[in-house]
Amino acid sequence: MRYPSREQLKDAANRIAFGIHHTPVLQSGYFNHTFRSDLFFKCENFQKVGAFKSRGAINAVFSLSDEAAANGVATHSSGNHAQALARAAALRKIPAYIVMPENAPKVKINAVKGYGGQITFCKPTLEARESTLKQIIRKTGATEIHPYNNLQVIEGQATAAMELLEEHPDIDLLLCPVGGGGLLSGTALAAHYFSQKATVIACEPARADDAYRSFLAGKIIPSTQPKTIADGLLTSLGDITFPIIRQFVSKIVTVKEESIIQAMRLVFERMKIVIEPSAAVPLAAVLEKKIDIAHKKTGIILSGGNVDLGHLPW
Amino acid sequence: MRYPSREQLKDAANRIAFGIHHTPVLQSGYFNHTFRSDLFFKCENFQKVGAFKSRGAINAVFSLSDEAAANGVATHSSGNHAQALARAAALRKIPAYIVMPENAPKVKINAVKGYGGQITFCKPTLEARESTLKQIIRKTGATEIHPYNNLQVIEGQATAAMELLEEHPDIDLLLCPVGGGGLLSGTALAAHYFSQKATVIACEPARADDAYRSFLAGKIIPSTQPKTIADGLLTSLGDITFPIIRQFVSKIVTVKEESIIQAMRLVFERMKIVIEPSAAVPLAAVLEKKIDIAHKKTGIILSGGNVDLGHLPW
Repeated sequence: MRYPSREQLKDAANRIAFGIHHTPVLQSGYFNHTFRSDLFFKCENFQKVGAFKSRGAINAVFSLSDEAAANGVATHSSGNHAQALARAAALRKIPAYIVMPENAPKVKINAVKGYGGQITFCKPTLEARESTLKQIIRKTGATEIHPYNNLQVIEGQATAAMELLEEHPDIDLLLCPVGGGGLLSGTALAAHYFSQKATVIACEPARADDAYRSFLAGKIIPSTQPKTIADGLLTSLGDITFPIIRQFVSKIVTVKEESIIQAMRLVFERMKIVIEPSAAVPLAAVLEKKIDIAHKKTGIILSGGNVDLGHLPW
Repeated sequence: MRYPSREQLKDAANRIAFGIHHTPVLQSGYFNHTFRSDLFFKCENFQKVGAFKSRGAINAVFSLSDEAAANGVATHSSGNHAQALARAAALRKIPAYIVMPENAPKVKINAVKGYGGQITFCKPTLEARESTLKQIIRKTGATEIHPYNNLQVIEGQATAAMELLEEHPDIDLLLCPVGGGGLLSGTALAAHYFSQKATVIACEPARADDAYRSFLAGKIIPSTQPKTIADGLLTSLGDITFPIIRQFVSKIVTVKEESIIQAMRLVFERMKIVIEPSAAVPLAAVLEKKIDIAHKKTGIILSGGNVDLGHLPW
């Protein structure tokens, strides 16, 4: 099993500091009172490109040798990783080749273009994405930066929890959403190295519960037809993220769609901040009483804030 | 003309510190780039009860003598001031009598009740509100705390700009929405006493432009049938706020409804924070190019974040 060392996480934090926000940690009197807890929300919705993905992308891009970097980086993604990678490549002044499905929303296409990303469209199937990406890599010599199954990406994502634990070293519980497991494995490593006591619990939509089932089964069970409003959590675990999660995450709980929407709206109303559905999944688990946070210092990673405000789910 | 002194503003800041949030000042790379400016957003949407009104209400309630306080405080309001006053009274453990129109939204009624406010309903006319309030004051001996035409309320509202100027003393421009003028007169006094150079510009919906017309005419022209989405800015100036505004505010500009909605949505999308329409009025003026902020350090008071998320205006 390969996983980043304590020193590698520290190096990542130093490497990316120039290009990310050290995001604020917010508290809410309402939530503390309601849940008789002491809640600390790490606001990655305020992060560059609106999501924690900036961290991993910059760390991966700036970990490349000059020779490798010169050929650029490539990925297939229609989400936050695509924007984050395009921005990270722009910071290093190298090309970013992004494969996107031809039905990707215009706003996401324009965001990637805005950062100078070079987009190749393909049919909206995983096969088409992967074969198109392979072609591009063969032609350009670009390095693939996988959205989560990549050690440097994991190191970068770990820095969100590292910042949170540095400010609040006595946190008991860390709640984190899980999709492909990049943020989760990074968070779990951060807790392992930089906390004396923090337990990491992952939270997943019941309608995309492949991580939950994989965790129970002890082997990766790929996601089949996931259908959740939390569109950042549709992906399956990878062979790098899964072993880290098995070793360092204490449990995975699942939540209903209604709870995700309720949690998301509560955060808008009570904390006056904008989060995307994926970011609301840990609070949804608290609302469903799947996790007992009473009288515990509880950290929640609010993973991002990129949501279509013209189609809010309530 | 009566207006608070520099010392009175400092006293107010000390008096209310225990009961308010020292709210954060946020920046946005997107807005700075777009407007070629250096913008500082003072986030009173994160304030207690979701608006700057907490400041003035606490200052007024805690400025009362013990004898006067014992009889409680009273106001007529269906907005943020009602909640803020109920909360301030609860902090001093005295009664708050709130007169509300019988058609007030349930969510606002429940919020006031949640803070222990004692509500009396009346017909939804200004006459009914005022006569009902008078009756209550006659019966209880409570002190009326006007939402804005009150020196202690103005002192309290001034503390938002004081905090902003303390953190960023070199601000050139301060943009502030205007309704009754409590926040605006406080902001103008804060700039007068605590800045070497900050110019204060007020921003008002064109469809509730009584302050704009009063400022030009040199006398209070009451609001007649104002109709704007910025429901915190419907009120007319008062005989205490107007003279302060005439003396210390450099100009008032008006904005269209569409610009308010556009500005509000941009703040949600780009800054990932929730603001109410009234808070978006200064940025709307920037969008309409009514104010030239290029190459200037520009402070904007985001006055509050209490908005019906079930009926966003886009």
